[in-house]
Amino acid sequence: MQRVELGQKVLSENARIAAELRERFHDHGILCLNLISAPGSGKTSLLERTLELLGKDERVAVLTGDIQTENDATRLKRFGFPVKQITTGGTCHLDAQMIDRHLADWQLENIDILFIENVGNLVCPSSYDLGEDAKIVLLSVTEGEDKPLKYPSIFFKSELMILNKVDLLPYVPFNPDVALENARRVHPEIDIVKVSCTTGEGLDLWMDWIEKGRRTAKARAAEPVA
Amino acid sequence: MQRVELGQKVLSENARIAAELRERFHDHGILCLNLISAPGSGKTSLLERTLELLGKDERVAVLTGDIQTENDATRLKRFGFPVKQITTGGTCHLDAQMIDRHLADWQLENIDILFIENVGNLVCPSSYDLGEDAKIVLLSVTEGEDKPLKYPSIFFKSELMILNKVDLLPYVPFNPDVALENARRVHPEIDIVKVSCTTGEGLDLWMDWIEKGRRTAKARAAEPVA
Repeated sequence: MQRVELGQKVLSENARIAAELRERFHDHGILCLNLISAPGSGKTSLLERTLELLGKDERVAVLTGDIQTENDATRLKRFGFPVKQITTGGTCHLDAQMIDRHLADWQLENIDILFIENVGNLVCPSSYDLGEDAKIVLLSVTEGEDKPLKYPSIFFKSELMILNKVDLLPYVPFNPDVALENARRVHPEIDIVKVSCTTGEGLDLWMDWIEKGRRTAKARAAEPVA
Repeated sequence: MQRVELGQKVLSENARIAAELRERFHDHGILCLNLISAPGSGKTSLLERTLELLGKDERVAVLTGDIQTENDATRLKRFGFPVKQITTGGTCHLDAQMIDRHLADWQLENIDILFIENVGNLVCPSSYDLGEDAKIVLLSVTEGEDKPLKYPSIFFKSELMILNKVDLLPYVPFNPDVALENARRVHPEIDIVKVSCTTGEGLDLWMDWIEKGRRTAKARAAEPVA
């Protein structure tokens, strides 16, 4: 019981910081996207392709989380945008305080899109609000169609599911229709985009989805304060 | 700080129950294996192939953990061995108490091998001793070679790494030698077996590994108490 109470305290402190972050993102018209998946579903590869497709003059930044190594930041820095690695040391998710701390020396007025790549974990990151506009869950076709039913929380909380690695469909026993149906059983309104970071299939739809979010974020920042 | 202390209390209570479980497993000559991986690396598929390869008269039992659904137990019950689903409800790992509770109505004297399939998560299950003889980590070739470096704890604590889905190697940018080198950087003594649950490649080596463990467990139970 004591454990639950303490857990709630940690989460409510997280919620407080996340709310502050969200307000700052809104004020600056920033679209903030929190990418979550199992290890190896392709979050970093998707970000690589995304940064490649975005023009060099886009105002994009990336925070990428891992328990150990700077590997992902190294991969993502090649595209010339500001990238910071958050190394959690052992913690199985990012929390709002880590985001707040790693944003400290960035000027938010210079950012239009902030990508956050969470630690590879389909469970714990779903409980931590990072002030994002949307959580995005990646599922790869090598993982099995029933993952939305087995890990419902993250599929319920995500605005978008990206079904990744569709180029591997000929080689794995995976029925995308069943996976989509399972995702919609958990979250009927979830957006779904099928992509392959290898062949580029579907990346145009993903880029459209981002662009729509960016326009919404800009419009929100331009609204007069009530 | 308070959080850390409470976390330690939870873990030491887990360690106490795990030690009791281990003693009971040892007394009964049971080999207990705790399978851990990211979601979708193929724990259930490996267990399906394993139960298929074991003779019908083998004394094998399975506890399989998931946050939601009884899917895995349904898949595994087809082979005629006792199988129980542990549905954690939201908890990201199995703990020793869950194992203890789900063993309550099984006669340990009728079991030679107990497989535990953990919740799909490469982080949190590494912290929870379940009284097993060995943790076994699965990595599939679709997940990237650097996972041992990014999630070192579970590779360090596992006796065996199973590199799964090697049938997909022609279709993915994955160098098994690099993955093995990364695993051995974290844990130089780790055993490694490469398998494909689709083609059956390498399963003989996995079955040999189990058989060796079983003989050790039997010999240990036969030793006179000091």
